Amino acid sequence: MTGTLDTTSPNRVVLVTGGAGYIGSHACKLLAQQGFTPVTFDSLTTGWAQAVKFGPLVQADLLDRAALDAAFAEYQPCAVMHFAALSQVGEATRDPGLYWRNNVCGSLNLIEAMTAAGCRNIVFSSTCATYGDQDGVVLDEDSPQRPLNAYGASKLAVEGILRDFGVSHGLNSVIFRYFNVAGADPEAEVGEWHQPETHLIPVMIEAVAGARPALTIHGNDYPTHDGTCIRDYVHVMDLARAHVLGLDWLLNARGSRVFNLGTGVGFSVAEVIAQCRAGTGHRVPHSFGPRRAGDAAALVSGSRRAVEELGWTQERSSLKLMIEDAWRWYKLGGYSG
Amino acid sequence: MTGTLDTTSPNRVVLVTGGAGYIGSHACKLLAQQGFTPVTFDSLTTGWAQAVKFGPLVQADLLDRAALDAAFAEYQPCAVMHFAALSQVGEATRDPGLYWRNNVCGSLNLIEAMTAAGCRNIVFSSTCATYGDQDGVVLDEDSPQRPLNAYGASKLAVEGILRDFGVSHGLNSVIFRYFNVAGADPEAEVGEWHQPETHLIPVMIEAVAGARPALTIHGNDYPTHDGTCIRDYVHVMDLARAHVLGLDWLLNARGSRVFNLGTGVGFSVAEVIAQCRAGTGHRVPHSFGPRRAGDAAALVSGSRRAVEELGWTQERSSLKLMIEDAWRWYKLGGYSG
Repeated sequence: MTGTLDTTSPNRVVLVTGGAGYIGSHACKLLAQQGFTPVTFDSLTTGWAQAVKFGPLVQADLLDRAALDAAFAEYQPCAVMHFAALSQVGEATRDPGLYWRNNVCGSLNLIEAMTAAGCRNIVFSSTCATYGDQDGVVLDEDSPQRPLNAYGASKLAVEGILRDFGVSHGLNSVIFRYFNVAGADPEAEVGEWHQPETHLIPVMIEAVAGARPALTIHGNDYPTHDGTCIRDYVHVMDLARAHVLGLDWLLNARGSRVFNLGTGVGFSVAEVIAQCRAGTGHRVPHSFGPRRAGDAAALVSGSRRAVEELGWTQERSSLKLMIEDAWRWYKLGGYSG
Repeated sequence: MTGTLDTTSPNRVVLVTGGAGYIGSHACKLLAQQGFTPVTFDSLTTGWAQAVKFGPLVQADLLDRAALDAAFAEYQPCAVMHFAALSQVGEATRDPGLYWRNNVCGSLNLIEAMTAAGCRNIVFSSTCATYGDQDGVVLDEDSPQRPLNAYGASKLAVEGILRDFGVSHGLNSVIFRYFNVAGADPEAEVGEWHQPETHLIPVMIEAVAGARPALTIHGNDYPTHDGTCIRDYVHVMDLARAHVLGLDWLLNARGSRVFNLGTGVGFSVAEVIAQCRAGTGHRVPHSFGPRRAGDAAALVSGSRRAVEELGWTQERSSLKLMIEDAWRWYKLGGYSG
């Protein structure tokens, strides 16, 4: 960690929405290591109480404005890290209202509550899904944003709210557009645990372990070299580290900035299957099915800005390492124990 | 009116949100002339009870889901025309939360209520402000959308919700992106009446009439031929006619389509002042002030699609005629009488 955190700040509390979720819980671990107190604000609709290990939990929903106001009054955070969101493309396509309400109206509640409480720093989890399908081009932060589904559209709308409150209320924001997040805390204190699981690598691992039938690959007729979708996988601990650097930037520099977070290297689903065999030592049972609505053919991150401006480095950028960390976490039982 | 409206439809009721407002009230008049029953759903926050002359009024807010459900249950409309929105760029820039909540969360309520009630046809008032600033290019419906303020961003978000519900729920939608609307019903049954007034032509008319001090032109250093902002003005009756044609298209063809509505001719603010003198016979007292945040230099509509696909014709596309109609309405006292 190369950041020079502002240790003169009177309050090192960070409100972490979705802190009981996959990425949020890893960020909480790193925040605690850096001397912050992460206060998790999470409805536990998709998060896990067992994942909240590094600070207190406020169990409440972003649509509950009174609960937000109470949390800001009690903890007086110097910043917010906003991870809480619904994030399944398939569900978003079937039930877009759920996504617009939870992700957009919920985020609006949060942003209004924080500005009302005088908290003006936020790190926001956005997504490469805001770019939509750009035919395999490496995407930088100025690439056009044309989301293909309600998940991406809802995240893009929140980016707009943050920009607007930057103008009106002096809200400082760091927006991270994640590419595909993978892996787990190598110390296995926290990890990825969704119910149901829809992310590719843990689904493969469940199939390897016999905990689910062979997995179905959604489409092998995309315009990519082997017909399967290409994604850029970034390790969750590297991603969490970027968040602490983003917080550092906010607390010292202030302003608003967007950063892509990925490795810059794309892997097709077929290549991930091969790496999964290498990482677990087992074949991945799979078959091919039709495309899923709302999926882009290829999404690869240009992440130079985070490297140059935040000093971000990746310690676990190997896909095999991500799979090994995820496999270790799975074998230890995740949050099921 | 060249449309071939589906007269076999069992219910010719159209729920008109914002029917007590400027454009909504003109659309209600035309709907009634075409044999529809316009049911106005309006909070009267910015609308006028006196403008509701052509059908019943439900006085309620879009954020009140129960009131929406009750209105759909009582009137069982075959379609919705959705005009209700906050629409002032200056206010949107100062208080973006108000715009995101009312325009986006409110529209989400409406769309969820209508799909829950089985109503699957909607004509939506969007705006050229979704395009942002494009350096004087004539904009067509495929121009990139990069809104400059929370008003445009909130309308763009609603376009996204409609697109998503088209996929998930088979919602049919006609999205009209308005350029600058002007004029009034030539028969002066309804007209433009805002409090406070911020639209250029009625503000000029109030200045002509001595009802306000000389008007301030926001910026004369834009990259246009005379330094003032260029806009495309479309007559409110022509706009209302497009809505009935859009409803016709929805009830007969179904699907989703976006149409720009403008004349294709831009006028600078200085040119509007000259036309206002021609239309009212009086000089317009004015001075120049600084630019207003969020304003694009020039916005001119390419509206060929509405002409070709909807058979839209404009009967009052002369700016002088728009000003004459607005002036007549003003002299009759608007809704103040």
